[in-house]
Amino acid sequence: MTDKLIIFDTTLRDGEQSPGASMTKDEKLRIARQLERLKVDVIEAGFAASSNGDFECVQAIAAAIKDSTVCSLSRANDRDIARAAEALKPAARGRIHTFIATSPLHMEKKLRMTPEEVLEQSKLAVRFARNQIDDVEFSAEDGYRSEMDFLCRVIEAVIKEGATTVNIPDTVGYAIPELYGDFIRTLRERVPNSDKAIWSVHCHNDLGMAVANSLAGVKIGGARQIECTINGLGERAGNCSLEEVVMAVKTRRDYFGLDVDIDASHIVAASRMVSQTTGFVVQPNKAVVGANAFAHASGIHQDGVLKARDTYEIMRAEDVGWSANKIVLGKLSGRNAFKQRLQELGVMLESEGEIMAAFAKFKDLADRKSEIFDEDILALVSDESVTAEKEQYGFISLSQHSETGERPQAEVVFSVGGKEVKGTSDGNGPVDASLKAIESHVQSGAEMVLYSVNAISGSTESQGEVTVRLQNSGRVVNGVGADPDIIVASAKAYLSALNKLHSKAERVAAQG
Amino acid sequence: MTDKLIIFDTTLRDGEQSPGASMTKDEKLRIARQLERLKVDVIEAGFAASSNGDFECVQAIAAAIKDSTVCSLSRANDRDIARAAEALKPAARGRIHTFIATSPLHMEKKLRMTPEEVLEQSKLAVRFARNQIDDVEFSAEDGYRSEMDFLCRVIEAVIKEGATTVNIPDTVGYAIPELYGDFIRTLRERVPNSDKAIWSVHCHNDLGMAVANSLAGVKIGGARQIECTINGLGERAGNCSLEEVVMAVKTRRDYFGLDVDIDASHIVAASRMVSQTTGFVVQPNKAVVGANAFAHASGIHQDGVLKARDTYEIMRAEDVGWSANKIVLGKLSGRNAFKQRLQELGVMLESEGEIMAAFAKFKDLADRKSEIFDEDILALVSDESVTAEKEQYGFISLSQHSETGERPQAEVVFSVGGKEVKGTSDGNGPVDASLKAIESHVQSGAEMVLYSVNAISGSTESQGEVTVRLQNSGRVVNGVGADPDIIVASAKAYLSALNKLHSKAERVAAQG
Repeated sequence: MTDKLIIFDTTLRDGEQSPGASMTKDEKLRIARQLERLKVDVIEAGFAASSNGDFECVQAIAAAIKDSTVCSLSRANDRDIARAAEALKPAARGRIHTFIATSPLHMEKKLRMTPEEVLEQSKLAVRFARNQIDDVEFSAEDGYRSEMDFLCRVIEAVIKEGATTVNIPDTVGYAIPELYGDFIRTLRERVPNSDKAIWSVHCHNDLGMAVANSLAGVKIGGARQIECTINGLGERAGNCSLEEVVMAVKTRRDYFGLDVDIDASHIVAASRMVSQTTGFVVQPNKAVVGANAFAHASGIHQDGVLKARDTYEIMRAEDVGWSANKIVLGKLSGRNAFKQRLQELGVMLESEGEIMAAFAKFKDLADRKSEIFDEDILALVSDESVTAEKEQYGFISLSQHSETGERPQAEVVFSVGGKEVKGTSDGNGPVDASLKAIESHVQSGAEMVLYSVNAISGSTESQGEVTVRLQNSGRVVNGVGADPDIIVASAKAYLSALNKLHSKAERVAAQG
Repeated sequence: MTDKLIIFDTTLRDGEQSPGASMTKDEKLRIARQLERLKVDVIEAGFAASSNGDFECVQAIAAAIKDSTVCSLSRANDRDIARAAEALKPAARGRIHTFIATSPLHMEKKLRMTPEEVLEQSKLAVRFARNQIDDVEFSAEDGYRSEMDFLCRVIEAVIKEGATTVNIPDTVGYAIPELYGDFIRTLRERVPNSDKAIWSVHCHNDLGMAVANSLAGVKIGGARQIECTINGLGERAGNCSLEEVVMAVKTRRDYFGLDVDIDASHIVAASRMVSQTTGFVVQPNKAVVGANAFAHASGIHQDGVLKARDTYEIMRAEDVGWSANKIVLGKLSGRNAFKQRLQELGVMLESEGEIMAAFAKFKDLADRKSEIFDEDILALVSDESVTAEKEQYGFISLSQHSETGERPQAEVVFSVGGKEVKGTSDGNGPVDASLKAIESHVQSGAEMVLYSVNAISGSTESQGEVTVRLQNSGRVVNGVGADPDIIVASAKAYLSALNKLHSKAERVAAQG
């Protein structure tokens, strides 16, 4: 058995399935490049057959990424697999990941298929996939709740058909470490050709044990691939978190004895990028990447840390990319310095025109804010208007006033399909008034289900980054906007969310 | 061995040690009442000897709580223990929790004591504590990194001295489930009088495995008490999260076979209360209490859930207290309805004057906002001015204006020690201008290290709840303010943080 542990990141597929976490192609490309920089072994880029948009994302990532394998999910049918194969054509190394549910509950209630039908379809799917590509992963959805004898037959059959990786997900986050580890070990012992494939684990966090379950699958079970996401993003309580599982393997190398290729120094940047892109905050007490993960409050602890660092620290903040917030650029920085910093941050703007637009925004910001941090730059370009194609709605200007005892007033000027319109409204507060001013024209009827603001860097001069989540006819979208003026940032975020609603990307979606 | 699992909540002690999570006495009392409503077995209310403020909090909670045991932490010396015993006098059931580090690293670098000295002090501390109270817990700090033979001697000795609970913390979050479980089991097998005490686990989440480690300590190791916090609050990456560990034991009763007394239907309310009080957000993909924990986005999952709920759900949202956001009160609600709702929400205002003040704020809010949700009410009373004693700084009124192309302006009127002052300033945005207007008078020199806003309920008419974290001379405080006008909420939050800085509660602090 190899002592290398394969890190399979599914932020862009399972992570994106989180309600409200959908990302644009540009955002996905940027995150894929950051995952490549992290030295992730496999990047699951999407589910090509689910929509044209997803197909294009997988294709674009396959073309852009050179160092990681790029993977597309597909259901266990020829059409899905052919679409995945087509999207992966530009890839240096591509993988088709095909899945079908194997638990009695899922087969009966969801698929309405008999076990024999599922077994047959699994074989056909893997056979078809192997005719398209050498690297084929098979997932037994809800594997951990499947009947052992049947699951052994399925796994043996798909390995015989040429599956190179077999994945046993805990789809509903029901497992306990020692049970899950034993389950994987038993499978590996009972499947006669188990040594012909790499075994993989994919755990959900509904009971808070995704990391421990994944590691038990590796240590006790003998799996050599872990499927995970940045910040543990993913449906419901999310997936195994990449940063936690990687740092556990590195910190407890004494026990696991496994190599991972991940360059941990890019972890914090990756976490921020995913959090800023999706608007999913990382709580302060999140392991590894939370703002407090390396902070000590109590006198006794501080004292301990001063006397000997390892009294209370088992990892070093620097190792995962925490560093003092550095001033990276200022008013006098030129276009080349800006461009270089963008590249270092993993932001690839597609054309010179886009770079010019971003640089113009940067200069505008630098006029108003003396110190520009990495976070500011990321916020600047995550602001849709720079990177995205022609958008339906665009922010132009805003004026607002509030005074205790009076009703707040706002006037927003914005473009709709290229035409300038002006909306005015009052509201409960200046944010409410500004968004109502926009709605007075747009009349989207969307319901706001989340509104949050985070200051991008520490000081009061910081930019505010606003996330707005809108819901309309069953679709949930996030819009993000950044500006030193929180009301302007709110209007931008709202328009950005409206743009996403407008783009109406319908899609079939995937497994957990 | 009993099949009842004791839930020991340390949100108010270890949780509060989180940088920025410090709470006022009123806030702690409110949370303690919610913990009692949850049917937590033991509430660790604080560390009485660390400051007069902490002493008063422990005392007040001891007097208020009837159904749960109330506990105070204390170092292993007579002075600390005597203070704890005094603070616990009003308790129906009180526990003294005394600790000393037992790992070679901590003994040598932090305590500068020999193992024999530590052993002796442990015995003396427990003996002294047992002379004060019947219920005594002993913790071997950094127990998991302690030398087994020595730890066995310490534990045997303290049980002999009368410790009724012995706790083996994984202070630095270094453990792996199967190793930690074996460690506890080995200890219990080797300590001759191990059956004379209840064994307890206390795990930190630095590698994301606090819940799994705690459960392994119980299932493999035979512990019967878990120490945990609401939302996993706690220093660095926090502690084992109460909601996750409790729901794991309940959901996997087939495996654990243990009873917990927790009334899970109060979990979401407890989570919100702790999050609103501390300003520590709960990330959407947090298990059990995250906004997405029970949300499904992907078409396949939705379909599965519709066909059979348990295809993708192992718990029911209702069971942990998620329910549709209910309109609870409106403009026409009277004082009694308001008072009753406060009680149902666990808010106990101390005097009629306070209730009147809160009711006045409620009517004011109801004039501006047509639907009042539970969250609005909680925000209203967590707004310091209602509950707290005389404060140094108080918000009076605010006026601000911003317009694209011009520099935002703000004027804030507020009280300083009862005297009304007016500050004006410009700024990068209206929030910056407003806070600078306040600083123009106060000149605290505090650095803002966090600024965040969350809408309290869904709609655009929602109140904004602002959290401001300030740092000054090594102290970190959070201020929270709520208002439909986000700029006003920011000013209130800033003044609230300044009040906390002003109160200068110095304290010695505790173990992890």
